Amino acid sequence: MEFVTALVFIFIACGCGIAWAIFNWIAVHKIEIHHKHEGLTEKLQGAEQEKIETLLEIGEHISDGAQAFLKEEYTDCSVFIAIMAVALIFVSPWSTLAFVLGAATSMLCGYLGMAIATAANFRTAFCAIRSLSDAFQMAYRGGCVMGFLLVSISLSILSLIIIIYNAVLVDNGDVENLISMFDYVAAYGLGGSTFALFGRVGGGIYTKAADVGADLVGKVEKNLPEDSPKNPATIADNVGDNVGDIAGMGADLFGSFAESTCAALVVSSTQLRAINEDGLLNITIGQLMYPLMVSAFGIGICILVSGYAVFIQKVTDIHKIESTLKQQLLLSTIALSPIIIGISYWALPADYVMIQADGTTQLENLKPWHAFVCSLMGLWSGLLIGYFTEYMTSHSYSPVREVAKSCGTGAATNIIYGLALGYLSTIVPIVSIAVTAFLSMKLLSFYGVALAALGMLSNLTIGLAIDAYGPISDNAGGIAEMSELGEDVRTSTDALDAAGNTTAAIGKGFAIGSAALVSLSLYGGYLTRIQTFQKSDGSFPYSEGAKIDDPIIFAMLMIGAMLPYAFSAFTMKSVGKAALQMVEEVRRQLHEHPGIYAGTEEPDFRACIAISTKASLKEMIPPGLLVIVTPTAVGLFFGPQAVAGLLPGALVSGVQMAISASNTGGAWDNAKKYIEAGFYKNDAGEVRKKGSDEHKAAVIGDTVGDPLKDTSGPSLNILIKLMAILSLVLAETFCKTGWLYSE
Amino acid sequence: MEFVTALVFIFIACGCGIAWAIFNWIAVHKIEIHHKHEGLTEKLQGAEQEKIETLLEIGEHISDGAQAFLKEEYTDCSVFIAIMAVALIFVSPWSTLAFVLGAATSMLCGYLGMAIATAANFRTAFCAIRSLSDAFQMAYRGGCVMGFLLVSISLSILSLIIIIYNAVLVDNGDVENLISMFDYVAAYGLGGSTFALFGRVGGGIYTKAADVGADLVGKVEKNLPEDSPKNPATIADNVGDNVGDIAGMGADLFGSFAESTCAALVVSSTQLRAINEDGLLNITIGQLMYPLMVSAFGIGICILVSGYAVFIQKVTDIHKIESTLKQQLLLSTIALSPIIIGISYWALPADYVMIQADGTTQLENLKPWHAFVCSLMGLWSGLLIGYFTEYMTSHSYSPVREVAKSCGTGAATNIIYGLALGYLSTIVPIVSIAVTAFLSMKLLSFYGVALAALGMLSNLTIGLAIDAYGPISDNAGGIAEMSELGEDVRTSTDALDAAGNTTAAIGKGFAIGSAALVSLSLYGGYLTRIQTFQKSDGSFPYSEGAKIDDPIIFAMLMIGAMLPYAFSAFTMKSVGKAALQMVEEVRRQLHEHPGIYAGTEEPDFRACIAISTKASLKEMIPPGLLVIVTPTAVGLFFGPQAVAGLLPGALVSGVQMAISASNTGGAWDNAKKYIEAGFYKNDAGEVRKKGSDEHKAAVIGDTVGDPLKDTSGPSLNILIKLMAILSLVLAETFCKTGWLYSE
Repeated sequence: MEFVTALVFIFIACGCGIAWAIFNWIAVHKIEIHHKHEGLTEKLQGAEQEKIETLLEIGEHISDGAQAFLKEEYTDCSVFIAIMAVALIFVSPWSTLAFVLGAATSMLCGYLGMAIATAANFRTAFCAIRSLSDAFQMAYRGGCVMGFLLVSISLSILSLIIIIYNAVLVDNGDVENLISMFDYVAAYGLGGSTFALFGRVGGGIYTKAADVGADLVGKVEKNLPEDSPKNPATIADNVGDNVGDIAGMGADLFGSFAESTCAALVVSSTQLRAINEDGLLNITIGQLMYPLMVSAFGIGICILVSGYAVFIQKVTDIHKIESTLKQQLLLSTIALSPIIIGISYWALPADYVMIQADGTTQLENLKPWHAFVCSLMGLWSGLLIGYFTEYMTSHSYSPVREVAKSCGTGAATNIIYGLALGYLSTIVPIVSIAVTAFLSMKLLSFYGVALAALGMLSNLTIGLAIDAYGPISDNAGGIAEMSELGEDVRTSTDALDAAGNTTAAIGKGFAIGSAALVSLSLYGGYLTRIQTFQKSDGSFPYSEGAKIDDPIIFAMLMIGAMLPYAFSAFTMKSVGKAALQMVEEVRRQLHEHPGIYAGTEEPDFRACIAISTKASLKEMIPPGLLVIVTPTAVGLFFGPQAVAGLLPGALVSGVQMAISASNTGGAWDNAKKYIEAGFYKNDAGEVRKKGSDEHKAAVIGDTVGDPLKDTSGPSLNILIKLMAILSLVLAETFCKTGWLYSE
Repeated sequence: MEFVTALVFIFIACGCGIAWAIFNWIAVHKIEIHHKHEGLTEKLQGAEQEKIETLLEIGEHISDGAQAFLKEEYTDCSVFIAIMAVALIFVSPWSTLAFVLGAATSMLCGYLGMAIATAANFRTAFCAIRSLSDAFQMAYRGGCVMGFLLVSISLSILSLIIIIYNAVLVDNGDVENLISMFDYVAAYGLGGSTFALFGRVGGGIYTKAADVGADLVGKVEKNLPEDSPKNPATIADNVGDNVGDIAGMGADLFGSFAESTCAALVVSSTQLRAINEDGLLNITIGQLMYPLMVSAFGIGICILVSGYAVFIQKVTDIHKIESTLKQQLLLSTIALSPIIIGISYWALPADYVMIQADGTTQLENLKPWHAFVCSLMGLWSGLLIGYFTEYMTSHSYSPVREVAKSCGTGAATNIIYGLALGYLSTIVPIVSIAVTAFLSMKLLSFYGVALAALGMLSNLTIGLAIDAYGPISDNAGGIAEMSELGEDVRTSTDALDAAGNTTAAIGKGFAIGSAALVSLSLYGGYLTRIQTFQKSDGSFPYSEGAKIDDPIIFAMLMIGAMLPYAFSAFTMKSVGKAALQMVEEVRRQLHEHPGIYAGTEEPDFRACIAISTKASLKEMIPPGLLVIVTPTAVGLFFGPQAVAGLLPGALVSGVQMAISASNTGGAWDNAKKYIEAGFYKNDAGEVRKKGSDEHKAAVIGDTVGDPLKDTSGPSLNILIKLMAILSLVLAETFCKTGWLYSE
């Protein structure tokens, strides 16, 4: 395929994606909120202008709080990004540029996601007064804006970088130029992931400090309902959903997307060679665009699929919410499958080989089908992970119901059953990832793994849309409660929110699955680098590869497997500590101002926002440093083989923890929702709802699950990916150092 | 060293060990229990003959219950052992014999441990009426009987097997004969570990089903104190301590001991060659006895050290309990260090090399110091792990106090802090194990790793004694409560028990640390086997070793790392399910017989014992099969390389989970004890004891911790070890099969 043809398609797709996002953005903003709205009077059950005004006011507070936090977070991170950018100048100024663009794109996407989510949340609450269908539309369209903007913007910026670097650096398609150019481009992924580290960890701590703190005093001590306007931490909790689950999640998945594309580009430019009757040909830059073409067509297909949900489907019944969202995933997966096959034949050479650094052939007789099998394996195992995650975390199925039932004997059994559910839920995702990794490595080595990661992310727009739908609905529920809208409104938003917990868990499944594959492909790149490193005496000291029975590799495999534990300990405790501060503040306010509890006085929610902001920015430093310092120090002191053990150790252990943490947390949350919805009956057949002992037990599980599913678990994705890409960038440095130990 | 000399020392040591155990056994039994005992009248505060009789009666019930369970468990396991024994005949009848002896030794040791523990528990309670010092003596001497009997018996039976096999099978010191002989001897370890699987898992489920069930109804619903005689599940709970924590633990550590000795023997007979001026000499069987000599002198030293605690030290104050127990560990470690150095120079050749299967040299210029460095690394890293575990799980230090403090905001923060503590507690043990593994692999390859494991286990007698001390004290506390002895008696037994939780955690640290090293050395043996496997066409298909970037190895590394999660899910849920059955039974009894709660009617504790027994025997099957079937099936279907990825995956992931589970559970238990002891004050400075909200929150943590620390966590040791030794035995079979996939 010609480079220009590829670019035309990519930019058309990105253009359509952005247009579709803007279209939905406008649709969201078109909803005007006033109390005279058609059909509202009956529904509001005597509600006045006042309630609508409260709703608007709360929406504004949340938006302000989120903006304020992002501003501080971005300021702090910029300093760090600037330091790393300067350090990268020693690698190449081109790397620095790509790195900064990657970080900036990530920030931009996070900001835009937050902006649309804070615009959609109170509108969703408002629409829920009219009808469930409208509310669902609003939340889902908000999610779509986030999904399509993020993917389209990041793909177009990446393509722009490639165009510019190609024009400036590459001399008439020279393959050596191409290789080093894609080395520079790879820093785009590093930039994205570096920012994502702080986005995920900082945002995760923020959101859960507020959430846990609010729950501890509100629900447990004072018996206030969730999101009660009397609870000073409620607004901070809702802000947290936007900065953690929206901006943080966006940064994370942008990182996966950018890194896997970069990994594919680096490996393919180095190793792929086309063949025709005359023998080996250098691969053209057009042919290298295959992974970007997959993403571009992914945007196109997802527009159609989400259009179907927006224009044709109607969610008239709470039981249809989850299935509609799931269908989006299924439809996009089915529709994309033939497209990916087509692109493979179109974009890739009909015959090609993979060569090794020394010019010998690693894999021969390669055809386009090798590539599409890898991509499709990724795509479909993503779907499988998504569906299985839904099964494990939705209260429509027996696993969560069993957890809910265990609340009958108290919080302890709830915790035991929830932990067991999370542990058990690793089996299917891990086997899927392992089989995908195995087959794609067999077919196309680490290029195959990168393609599998991209395949899993090819319907990322839909994945992000249904994921972002979750926190928007969650916020909507909170706003409805705080504005004291009627019981039936809250029932609608609760149902939206329960489905949102499940789709959030699905999103986390995608995020961790793709992170595992991305990290593996980056690890492959790292191994190639160190194996081809040549000492000044002409020898290849690390040509042996990574053998498990090499002492330093085994020892580091073990230490690597420990890192996710240390990291989770830091993040869990950070949430705990910040939550305790929040608790003290809430207690202080309720104690010093009894009017708050009586409902005659407004709580000072700004103080709570300030606590979450300060705590999260401070607490994200130790885990952040752990991720960045550990591989760097290990590499510098113990050499590249040590890192070759550290990375897979962290990968294989971290993936399990991340999956089990997300699913345990999701299951607890929905077990609580199951009880709140009045589905739970005790042995005597009585329905046990809010306020019952069973519900109290469920709340404890939910609270424990909060940091697991929204802080520790998702942050582990970043740990896995960032350690790998950082090591890749520093591979040569490690080969030259190894101060304390080298082979 | 001459074989005969070595044997003389070994049997003298074993004889002394057994004599010392018998001496303590007699001392325990000498305590006659009657109410006219000197000095009792005042202490019992008006208690009558009746209380003492209750005490005796309860002791008898516990003993009967434990015996009944072991009988059923042994019957069920014997069937399984018999099937495996028959299968092993195809390997060699000699293997079968060693296998059966290993399993039988393990059963015998478990039985003896249980017998002494059930004799010491009520006597400890009785002694606590007189003085803390006497009670401590009783509990510790009980532990000593267990520790010394187990190590002495297993060492002497292993030595006997070697004598007999050597006499029958080895032709005048021929090295080929020696190698195959030690291959047969290795089945002794397999036998021990196979039984340990069921001992640990079955016992673990038994004890925690009873404990959790008793707590859920008793403490949480009915506000009964722990071990209340009104709770029908109390006796089952106390029985559980004996079958799970004593018999199960004994079987586990016997397995580690037997396997690491066998691993050392197999590797050294195959690979070690002495050198003198004439060149390479075959190693003699006397020189091979080095690891057994270390264990033998370990027994000797530990007799002196425990004698010091028994005869000289006096525990007059509850603050001295923990330090006395810790001192035992420290003293034995210090005393053993020079001894091990001495034995190395005495037993090993002055110059030796390690050769590879093809006759080339793997490591040369080896001296005795190479061996003692490995052993000492193991010994001292065991101490470090022990001390660090104590720091993380004793309420004398800040980590547990922080967890206790977090109870101030309810159960959720308690759980969050406890989980974080467990995650964090992996750092030091993992780094110790990794450094030990690294250095010993560097120095003496996998022989070094086996020596490190043996070094860690060289003061196993003391390790077991302080470990068994825990459940004995726990039982004593329960019996004191049930017999309604005075408050001050209960204070003494509570203090003994709190120290016991810590030493139990230390014991678990040792168990998991040694399991990791044992498993690694067995993995080394496995790799050697498959690398030297020669196909009929003369090729060595698996000579490459285990490379992480080999697709099948990476995929299986990932799946291996998932197994501990699946396994824990099974065991946790088994405990949950069995506990729920227990809850129903207890509720039924309390409901149908109101006299029980009023104290006028005796509860039917036999029904509870029956539930625990039945549930545990049934529930141990799925996790048991997972451990045995997974490596076997993977090897048969996907070949030996697949297993070469599976084993290290399970090892590096399982070790983390086991450590974090044990320490989290231990910390929660002691956080609860800290509150119960009245050390906890809230922000307002009030002491919050039993019955407070803080205490309720702590009880929830403790209950969640029960299956983590006493079922899932310790069972993972067996998973790690048994998968490795099973794969070692089946290595050649895997090389010949690989039905679905082979390189």
